[in-house]
Amino acid sequence: MARINEHYLKLKAGYLFPEIGRRVKAFQAEHPEAQIIRMGIGDVVLPLAPAVVKAMKEGVEEMGRAEGFHGYGPERGYEFLARAILEKDYLSRGVKLAVEDLFISDGSKCDSGNIQEIFSTDCKVAVVDPVYPVYVDTNVMAGRTGSMDSAGRYEKMVYLPATAENRFSPSPPDFSVDLVYLCSPNNPTGATMNRGQMEQWVDYAKSHDAVLLFDAAYEAFITDPEIPHSIYEIPGAMDVAIEMRSFSKTAGFTGTRCAFMVVPQSLKGKGPDGKLVSLNQLWNRRHSTKFNGVSYPVQRGAAACYSPEGQRQIQDNINYYMENARIIHEALTKMGMEVYGGMNAPYLWVKTPKGIDSWGFFDKLLGEAHIVGTPGSGFGPSGEGYFRLSAFALRDKVEEAVERIATRLHL
Amino acid sequence: MARINEHYLKLKAGYLFPEIGRRVKAFQAEHPEAQIIRMGIGDVVLPLAPAVVKAMKEGVEEMGRAEGFHGYGPERGYEFLARAILEKDYLSRGVKLAVEDLFISDGSKCDSGNIQEIFSTDCKVAVVDPVYPVYVDTNVMAGRTGSMDSAGRYEKMVYLPATAENRFSPSPPDFSVDLVYLCSPNNPTGATMNRGQMEQWVDYAKSHDAVLLFDAAYEAFITDPEIPHSIYEIPGAMDVAIEMRSFSKTAGFTGTRCAFMVVPQSLKGKGPDGKLVSLNQLWNRRHSTKFNGVSYPVQRGAAACYSPEGQRQIQDNINYYMENARIIHEALTKMGMEVYGGMNAPYLWVKTPKGIDSWGFFDKLLGEAHIVGTPGSGFGPSGEGYFRLSAFALRDKVEEAVERIATRLHL
Repeated sequence: MARINEHYLKLKAGYLFPEIGRRVKAFQAEHPEAQIIRMGIGDVVLPLAPAVVKAMKEGVEEMGRAEGFHGYGPERGYEFLARAILEKDYLSRGVKLAVEDLFISDGSKCDSGNIQEIFSTDCKVAVVDPVYPVYVDTNVMAGRTGSMDSAGRYEKMVYLPATAENRFSPSPPDFSVDLVYLCSPNNPTGATMNRGQMEQWVDYAKSHDAVLLFDAAYEAFITDPEIPHSIYEIPGAMDVAIEMRSFSKTAGFTGTRCAFMVVPQSLKGKGPDGKLVSLNQLWNRRHSTKFNGVSYPVQRGAAACYSPEGQRQIQDNINYYMENARIIHEALTKMGMEVYGGMNAPYLWVKTPKGIDSWGFFDKLLGEAHIVGTPGSGFGPSGEGYFRLSAFALRDKVEEAVERIATRLHL
Repeated sequence: MARINEHYLKLKAGYLFPEIGRRVKAFQAEHPEAQIIRMGIGDVVLPLAPAVVKAMKEGVEEMGRAEGFHGYGPERGYEFLARAILEKDYLSRGVKLAVEDLFISDGSKCDSGNIQEIFSTDCKVAVVDPVYPVYVDTNVMAGRTGSMDSAGRYEKMVYLPATAENRFSPSPPDFSVDLVYLCSPNNPTGATMNRGQMEQWVDYAKSHDAVLLFDAAYEAFITDPEIPHSIYEIPGAMDVAIEMRSFSKTAGFTGTRCAFMVVPQSLKGKGPDGKLVSLNQLWNRRHSTKFNGVSYPVQRGAAACYSPEGQRQIQDNINYYMENARIIHEALTKMGMEVYGGMNAPYLWVKTPKGIDSWGFFDKLLGEAHIVGTPGSGFGPSGEGYFRLSAFALRDKVEEAVERIATRLHL
């Protein structure tokens, strides 16, 4: 009988969000009258910007006319979108990239999950703990780890604890790893790396011949002008880092699907014979063999995000979410809770009060205030004792939520 | 330095379509006046059906309104589309599938490239030769093969020659393999498997504990009522086969992106301890970990293909392409050429005249008639001496092309 990929059997059965879904469903069944407010999964709620809707509709109409029809597009994306990204996202911050460095895709989940394929299964991988589960699970599936230990860590994977003591931005380890997943602004902690911390990582990668996989999906939520939006703002990063970005949170594309990844042409890995190999060429081979480009009308919509009105409309939505974050931060702080994040990120990372564990607080918040959040322990062992709240919600829900937390929660 | 996936280095550098592009570009540069007709890459040319355009525009408009906005959808697709597929593509042919058997994706290239991930790297893989390169290359990348030999075959991979003698549908081998990629109607040969041949393969899979990976991306082009459209029309196939389908050719979605894969819940693989494991559950884990669903407006467009007017409009386009295929078939046959396919498939598989090799005929056709086709040898060693022509072209181009072949080609 066809044998399965045995590494899949190492994956923890109860994935975080399905387990949350199960508990919410059970609660709702027992309390059909409860008006549940969802601040768990990080999904946007505001509609697409008018400029995006207009461009997508035009794109669809073109597809319906012989002279405007688009069949297979370039696997790595249309140049009209690539040029807008390079100019508005990078050149505007002093980073000069070429069209050939860029790969447009249908999501950062895909990119951050697939990128490990071009590396050897022998590579040693480091992640920050707590962490976006996709980085870990896709390496488990590829066989780069052993089994999960009793503390919830996969053998052979390196976990870098992100704690209140290090402001949730761990320093590089004092030993060598090959691949490091970094995410700033961070999901789930909402922490951001400052320039000095990014420089430390670039230095580490240079001296240990490591590759940084830098997830900047939330860069649009940075408000502090001192914080870099791209790892490439750090000199030398083009030789050591891959960067991922997405329209999902920036422009509300979670249901529309568009993202991109930068694999600079200067970036190299080592072949079995010790020869240097272009990671850009390897990724291009992977991308064009297993992917057939992003839907044309979607790329038209993504490009519209860079028009003056698109930029304004998208910024309005980001401001809306960040005002939500401010409201939550202020309310919980006023209640005496320890709250992190929410300043340059749409996530708030809350210390659970009175030493309640993460799932205990999840049940308590759901049971007493009818609010769904995400237990920090679901993102890794160092998330235990924390709780993630998302600012992606409508304003009246946010106001209602903080009111309920203040008045209904028995602490 | 981070080590690369060394298996990528085994991949043949000159991939088929880039090489074609290179030669066409060089020819055009030397002959700027030449009006080149492209019948090489299998890309559709007719615009999206009006019913699809209407549904997609509505979908985009919904996304622009607070009450109609869709964020993250189900990774495996919306039920409105799944139900239409199950009813119109399967139940109508007597095949009863559940929503849970179905995974909607953004393309059959992705599905056929990714499906191998859930199987052990030790699995023995068989392909029909000539073959869609993605089946082979993705297994090379995963390390299931050795290097390519001088004949153009990767070591450890099993090639089943498709020849004129076996009507381009090879029988199962007399030894065991674990995974078999089948494609009917076939790309590139245009051959279709009849019921008896499909039964042979299902029997083979049952007695050898193999899994069939059945690519039915071109099923909509079947005109012979005796030929099954789905492997599941064969009793017992639900226990041994995965089926892939796409809207790319059926409904002109090559630039719109939507496809689906059926992984029946009854299908099992073997774990390292010999225990049976549900392949549906493994694929669900893979799909939901590395993919975030198809764009909502695109799924709306795909669903519109199943409305009465959508069905009619799509069928009109298919008929148009099949009339092209008939015209090409008739003209080349009249010239005394040996022509296969084109009856139940949009591809014609032409024996190159006078023993010219595939690339020689490519250069001759381009040089003398200014027509681009695809050299059969690009699909595998058994494709040598053949040439693929695609019926995906506008009628006037097709008529011009057969006229040029008849009058300009020096044979």
